[in-house]
Amino acid sequence: MAVGLHPPGELLAIEGLRLGTAEAGIRKSGRRDLVVLELPEGAETAAVFTRNRFCAAPVHLARQHLESTSPRYLLINTGNANAGTGQRGARDALRCCQALAEQTGVAVDRILPFSTGVIGEPLPVDRLISGLPTALGSLRPDGWQTAAEGILTTDTVAKACSRQLELDGHTITLTGMAKGAGMIRPDMATMLAFVATDCSVGGPLLQRLLQGVVDQSFNRITVDGDTSTNDACVLVATGASHCRLDALHPEDVAAFAETLADLCRELAQAIVRDGEGATRFITIQVEEAASAAEALTVAYCVAHSPLVKTAFFAGDPNWGRILAAVGRAGVDDLDVDRVRIWLDDVCLAEHGGRADGYSEEAAAERMAKQEIGIRVALGRGNASETVWTCDFSYEYVRINAEYRT
Amino acid sequence: MAVGLHPPGELLAIEGLRLGTAEAGIRKSGRRDLVVLELPEGAETAAVFTRNRFCAAPVHLARQHLESTSPRYLLINTGNANAGTGQRGARDALRCCQALAEQTGVAVDRILPFSTGVIGEPLPVDRLISGLPTALGSLRPDGWQTAAEGILTTDTVAKACSRQLELDGHTITLTGMAKGAGMIRPDMATMLAFVATDCSVGGPLLQRLLQGVVDQSFNRITVDGDTSTNDACVLVATGASHCRLDALHPEDVAAFAETLADLCRELAQAIVRDGEGATRFITIQVEEAASAAEALTVAYCVAHSPLVKTAFFAGDPNWGRILAAVGRAGVDDLDVDRVRIWLDDVCLAEHGGRADGYSEEAAAERMAKQEIGIRVALGRGNASETVWTCDFSYEYVRINAEYRT
Repeated sequence: MAVGLHPPGELLAIEGLRLGTAEAGIRKSGRRDLVVLELPEGAETAAVFTRNRFCAAPVHLARQHLESTSPRYLLINTGNANAGTGQRGARDALRCCQALAEQTGVAVDRILPFSTGVIGEPLPVDRLISGLPTALGSLRPDGWQTAAEGILTTDTVAKACSRQLELDGHTITLTGMAKGAGMIRPDMATMLAFVATDCSVGGPLLQRLLQGVVDQSFNRITVDGDTSTNDACVLVATGASHCRLDALHPEDVAAFAETLADLCRELAQAIVRDGEGATRFITIQVEEAASAAEALTVAYCVAHSPLVKTAFFAGDPNWGRILAAVGRAGVDDLDVDRVRIWLDDVCLAEHGGRADGYSEEAAAERMAKQEIGIRVALGRGNASETVWTCDFSYEYVRINAEYRT
Repeated sequence: MAVGLHPPGELLAIEGLRLGTAEAGIRKSGRRDLVVLELPEGAETAAVFTRNRFCAAPVHLARQHLESTSPRYLLINTGNANAGTGQRGARDALRCCQALAEQTGVAVDRILPFSTGVIGEPLPVDRLISGLPTALGSLRPDGWQTAAEGILTTDTVAKACSRQLELDGHTITLTGMAKGAGMIRPDMATMLAFVATDCSVGGPLLQRLLQGVVDQSFNRITVDGDTSTNDACVLVATGASHCRLDALHPEDVAAFAETLADLCRELAQAIVRDGEGATRFITIQVEEAASAAEALTVAYCVAHSPLVKTAFFAGDPNWGRILAAVGRAGVDDLDVDRVRIWLDDVCLAEHGGRADGYSEEAAAERMAKQEIGIRVALGRGNASETVWTCDFSYEYVRINAEYRT
């Protein structure tokens, strides 16, 4: 069902970083569900995590470990989120890290655990640990493709991409991977995404870069408005290129940041394109808002409306639902006579009603496409924001009604 | 599909008030889509309206007319919301009122218009006006049943009920009707609901009573989180019983208010029971909150979660989704270790994880019922709130994907 999304192209290795996978049978047998990322000594790692108050045990532990030292391994499992598992969940996450620490000879706090899958069931620790030797035995620099497959849950397509840019005579490489596909409404963080570069970037700068980029990529997507308990996004800088970002000209730093942002936008949009049951990829841009926060509030109100999303599924230009969503978004002093709404290049609404010259035929033609743009001008200021979402289909209901069976 | 909802029982006439209907063919032929309520001279009328900024032309006009004088007629059409119709919509609403004013000999501002249906299409004024003679010709005190049918859109069952109570030797009657069934998340007002009593209640007291009651009934339900452009709730006091509420003892006033609240709760819950595609009726109670606002925020966050709603549709006690919704509701300092969540009498979660003694079998048994209660204790204070909602089914997607075809 993925919209305009193809399997990853060539994924470039990041020098010093290796990836391995295993079929540990955590929830189902016969699928990769365990991924290990090995980082070189000296790599810098930044991460952002979900703000859901019921964040998962591995999120707590990863955050704690990241504060104490620099990671050497990322340990990722699917099939079980180890969330809503209380004290037992905390012990289970630690046990998995301990097992990997013993097998690799590193201190336990140099391992960051990540889990995704069903919430509220005990993590099958023994099965996970039994998969570690295979995962470690398969570690290789060009393991991105299999790792990108290994972190998927209800996703239908692996999501990964690479970028290169020239900085001060060095060829710098960035490669990242991410997974969706439901419970997607990242809040100050994101779902699972892992991005690495061979650029040398100090910890504080790396964290600043990551936060800025995440806010304009993963934090601008929504499938169903449900912020996960397990969201995490990790950025690793191995430094293998010997190109030190903090020694470069500001314009080079900006070029690196933009390339990173570009890569993260592609991954974030890939999650929406492969959103559960998605048949449409929808870009919602709100402009002329009084503030960025206001623009986002209106954009998400449209993006989360079940009525808007089912109309997109039907390919029905039922723009009255978009208008109703804008009207209920909580902008109390909104002057509806100044609001204009476009579907791609077709103006739907102005002066509080249907636009002059509106043609149902022209609107229906745009709605029939797989990629649709909605633009809302509020007539209140200069702020604008963009979010990406998908439609709401029978398939979304089926996937989530049958999720645990 | 309506959950535990039967056609209305005996509907008691309210002395002095008459109702008439017609098939005006506003959107489809062969169905009642035009309703006229005639109020006696001297009746007091209170109303609350949607806070959606794109509120419909009839909402604007009804509010304006209500401020200037006391209404004699309510004019209701389905099939077209006359919302998002700009200046033309305002003229169209007025033209309909003018036509009714001419045929009844009352001033135009004594008519309140109400519309519900598709947003953004011009109101077929001529068809509506051509139905007025039939509607006026059928006016009768016992017309509640046909009127309750005449205001329906995607509803599958008419929603109306009556109550009686003794006040100071008088038998006081209340009768009301309402319609849903989608775009239901009333905000400080409600979808279309019309309630009448033969009690004599002065305008300011009537408005106060209505606002208080609406906040605990219609403003506590949600089907899809989408606040309509056309919501309105009207309360009429004909005074025909000669029982003056403001001359009664406080306990009698309280008894009247409670009876009114009871009637409105039944109508509000009927809207949820007949929510688009509903197969479950779900009561979400949040207690031990720091404030009522906090309790409502958490309750609506659970009630609007597509993941929670699809799990209810599946009858799957996937309580991790409820927990995740509580965790993302925006209570920043929520101590998850103090949160407890129950499904009817089964404790699902405590101490940040699955409750001791939790049984999937017991939970699945409760989830298999059509009427389900979720109780969330936050461990933060004494405030509690209750909202009512329904599940999210294939049928909801079908109804809203095919709505305009």
